[in-house]
Amino acid sequence: MTAGTAGSPEVGPVQLLEKHRATLDQALETIRSRAYWSPHPEHPKAYGEGGTLSAEEGRAAFEELRGSRFELPGQPGGDGWTATESSPYGIALDIEYPHVDVGTLLPAMRLGMPAWREAGPEVRAAVCLEILARINARTHEFAHAVMHTSGQAFLMSLQAGGSHAQDRGMEAVAYAYAEQTSTPRTAEWSKPQGKREPLELSKSFTAVGRGVSLLIGCNTFPTWNGYSGLFASLATGNPVLVKPHPRAVLPLALTVRIAREVLSATGFDPNLIALAAEREGEGLAKELALHPQVRVIDYTGSTAFGDWLEAHATQALVHTEKAGVNTVVVDSTDDYQGMLANLAFSLSLYSGQMCTTPQNLLVPRDGIDTDEGAKSFDQVVTDLAGAVDKLLGDDARANALLGAIVNAQVGERIDAAGSLGEVALASRAVTHPEFPDATVRTPVIVKLEATKPEAEAAYLSECFGPVSFAVAVDSTPEAVRLLRRTVREKGAMTVAGYTTSPEMEQLIEDACLEECAQLSLNLTGGVYVNQTAAFSDFHGSGGNPAANSALCDGAFVAGRFRMVEVRRPA
Amino acid sequence: MTAGTAGSPEVGPVQLLEKHRATLDQALETIRSRAYWSPHPEHPKAYGEGGTLSAEEGRAAFEELRGSRFELPGQPGGDGWTATESSPYGIALDIEYPHVDVGTLLPAMRLGMPAWREAGPEVRAAVCLEILARINARTHEFAHAVMHTSGQAFLMSLQAGGSHAQDRGMEAVAYAYAEQTSTPRTAEWSKPQGKREPLELSKSFTAVGRGVSLLIGCNTFPTWNGYSGLFASLATGNPVLVKPHPRAVLPLALTVRIAREVLSATGFDPNLIALAAEREGEGLAKELALHPQVRVIDYTGSTAFGDWLEAHATQALVHTEKAGVNTVVVDSTDDYQGMLANLAFSLSLYSGQMCTTPQNLLVPRDGIDTDEGAKSFDQVVTDLAGAVDKLLGDDARANALLGAIVNAQVGERIDAAGSLGEVALASRAVTHPEFPDATVRTPVIVKLEATKPEAEAAYLSECFGPVSFAVAVDSTPEAVRLLRRTVREKGAMTVAGYTTSPEMEQLIEDACLEECAQLSLNLTGGVYVNQTAAFSDFHGSGGNPAANSALCDGAFVAGRFRMVEVRRPA
Repeated sequence: MTAGTAGSPEVGPVQLLEKHRATLDQALETIRSRAYWSPHPEHPKAYGEGGTLSAEEGRAAFEELRGSRFELPGQPGGDGWTATESSPYGIALDIEYPHVDVGTLLPAMRLGMPAWREAGPEVRAAVCLEILARINARTHEFAHAVMHTSGQAFLMSLQAGGSHAQDRGMEAVAYAYAEQTSTPRTAEWSKPQGKREPLELSKSFTAVGRGVSLLIGCNTFPTWNGYSGLFASLATGNPVLVKPHPRAVLPLALTVRIAREVLSATGFDPNLIALAAEREGEGLAKELALHPQVRVIDYTGSTAFGDWLEAHATQALVHTEKAGVNTVVVDSTDDYQGMLANLAFSLSLYSGQMCTTPQNLLVPRDGIDTDEGAKSFDQVVTDLAGAVDKLLGDDARANALLGAIVNAQVGERIDAAGSLGEVALASRAVTHPEFPDATVRTPVIVKLEATKPEAEAAYLSECFGPVSFAVAVDSTPEAVRLLRRTVREKGAMTVAGYTTSPEMEQLIEDACLEECAQLSLNLTGGVYVNQTAAFSDFHGSGGNPAANSALCDGAFVAGRFRMVEVRRPA
Repeated sequence: MTAGTAGSPEVGPVQLLEKHRATLDQALETIRSRAYWSPHPEHPKAYGEGGTLSAEEGRAAFEELRGSRFELPGQPGGDGWTATESSPYGIALDIEYPHVDVGTLLPAMRLGMPAWREAGPEVRAAVCLEILARINARTHEFAHAVMHTSGQAFLMSLQAGGSHAQDRGMEAVAYAYAEQTSTPRTAEWSKPQGKREPLELSKSFTAVGRGVSLLIGCNTFPTWNGYSGLFASLATGNPVLVKPHPRAVLPLALTVRIAREVLSATGFDPNLIALAAEREGEGLAKELALHPQVRVIDYTGSTAFGDWLEAHATQALVHTEKAGVNTVVVDSTDDYQGMLANLAFSLSLYSGQMCTTPQNLLVPRDGIDTDEGAKSFDQVVTDLAGAVDKLLGDDARANALLGAIVNAQVGERIDAAGSLGEVALASRAVTHPEFPDATVRTPVIVKLEATKPEAEAAYLSECFGPVSFAVAVDSTPEAVRLLRRTVREKGAMTVAGYTTSPEMEQLIEDACLEECAQLSLNLTGGVYVNQTAAFSDFHGSGGNPAANSALCDGAFVAGRFRMVEVRRPA
């Protein structure tokens, strides 16, 4: 296929719509009800039949990719190859991706826009759902790709990087469809003029994309954090240029290749999506972000670069998820063991390398009331450390929960944590039976005094990785004041609270409503503050410094297209 | 009433909801159907009964305001008085408005946010509709206020500045309500866990405003261009600070005073809306726009300041309507007289001082086909000049259509137009029988050659006021190429086309879809390219340099609030 031209479709729009309309309708219903739903199984054994890759097939497909050139047939502007990944599990990937000349690629990406616009929101949604269906069929392959770029453990890679990411993508497709179709395709307008003939016009309304949409991927959650923006932009008529993190190219490269295949098969220009893998130290994101043809940006990563994008890429609509400092207010509980177990799991999952992992545990200096009686500050911290130890005592379970440390900086932060205060729980290294070169570390918990200036400097900075601070505060109201300040100054993706007091609950809730942060209260079972479910939970609020948008809501999709009206006499 | 406190309500939420629910439902239905609807009569005689001001009462109320101090009881931060208006009709206004200390006012405006948030989207919508109903009852008073600040003729002031502005406000309330209520207030979430008990959470979702919303008003359409942003922000939970144009304070001051009365009467803090009138040359908009507590901005005015806002007010969500260069492509017509009459009216209405008035009429050098036979370029221009002359031949009708020139710069542009090319229609001064000091001018039409560099400099700049250019082009496809370039480089609020050729129609339509501009085709009757109807037409596209948003769509309201979720075990 020649770049910029579409072949005759293997799959027609009618077939596609028939295949996916019921799923789209269910997704549309669920973003309104926000009940539980997912069409993407999260159990590994759910795959292997009906054209989906089994565990063995997924692993084999991944092994096939290692040490190879990742071809993207027909993608214009190729000017060489680049390989920048290294598995946090220590195995060689050695996958080369095409490097592109942006000046050639960007104009070519726009050529398919008219046909993609003319297809309309429903066909675009069906094409997006077909892409997601084909990604879903290869969930096991994606699991390995996510595992060996992010360092997530296998099961988490399969769930968060596979089915849950697919859910987020579908959620964005549903929001995009709903927002575009809230204006009718045509309207007849008749304005009475008293005894004279009415004024009459026929109007048509067409959703048009803004232009090229740039996805700047992240290292830790390349698919989960990337799919909302990718599918929201594609579904609203925009070509999508994917610039992955240089350490996490494969999951997005697979995504782009599958999407290009589906676009071709359905008669659209495959260049509506393209991959821009960069060379080591190239700084391609900065160059692309300021390009006049780039009109939408989705970014997940550091606060510094996110702030830079918001300030400088003013030609584009910029959606950012940056860093925050997540707080847990511990006031009281009627399920002490449940609270400890829940928090221990939250701190341990993916070694705290989630933007949603709690960092500061604010506990009153005089202790808390629990169903097991009063517990002093020290006791709470000791018991939490014990809960983490118990959770991770078995190396097999520790490896399954922790995954690998994604880069050396995280390791350095773990090692430096001891200098910040009294260590309540020291980090230990865990050996991975299959990947002996992986760096696997358990969390460290450091005790701090809220009012000490040097402590404040520590707990008011994001310390990305498995480092958390048990901060002694004067009282719960004081904890809530500190929570407010933290959210306002540093941002927060999540807030958690434990309390049996209606007054304290209201205090925490009001703080979150006013400072605009998502709150989880009294989680003691199998739901964790760091996890959000697509179709039901909002990820981030978009209203505090941690992020300027939320996954996913109307605002996330509404600006990606404009409605062009043509009116004529009826 | 003390600033920052709410009295006990005179009108309860239940009463308000009963009163306005049917209207809200109709508005919600109409933004979906985009059929014709308005609850605000545009005929002057429709007013005078049912608690609405008659023509005489409206005039008397306006006269009462002249030469007085405009009090805003309870508005905090007052530090003096300012009077900056002068009627384009030459009468003295001498109205003094409170000047405020922003550092005192802004924090006070936030005090009412929690109760306003807790009220929820439905009560907020009902309060907004009550404000609009009370404004509507005083439409005749507003008509005089708009007339003597903008220079619009009386009937236009009553319609565009009164009922149509109220429509735009209500449309924004409907969009705000729809967007906020697309997420349910609560949800029960139950995730199956195979043979184990399902995971269950109770979730609540609360729409929270971003913070203080700043409305920067314009001189020509203080209410019409202001109400969408004002009501969208108020309805989504934000306090609104209104900074009117120093020459058009009164219409927005009246609006603020009515809104404060309604907020008080319904038990909310009146400081949820406030007026910041500035002193001559104070530059208050710039100071307010960068204030960290200002989180949303709505602006209508010059491109220079709009671009500055977009680049610098990065702490806020910025909605701009700037200037553009509006084009008419004249290819052919089957109603030559209808086309001429329609264009003549468009050029004359409010002396071309509308952001939607056509500026460049692109006509093929070899002439066009019409139902009256072939017409040469010169003939078309001569006939259009004749149509304008005929339309404005009678001074009474001319005054009723033209209104007054809003400021001296517009007058200077009219006088300078003759130096740009051959004058096809000269502007004449019209005497106003009631207001002899008003500057009333008919439009000027200048012929230009598309390809001459000095002509290009003229027609590719916005020449605000009753100056239009009849530009000779090689062909219709050449006109469309110039249209594309104009929209891309200069932006456009409107595009019009006249053609009987399906091929040329497609060419024009494709250009508008790709360059993102709103198109009116073959208007020959009583609908004009410069007019858009709320609930049905989009004003601007938000996708070209003339504006970054459209009135009104989901994107215009969706970012003004964030959804805060609280989840707890079920």
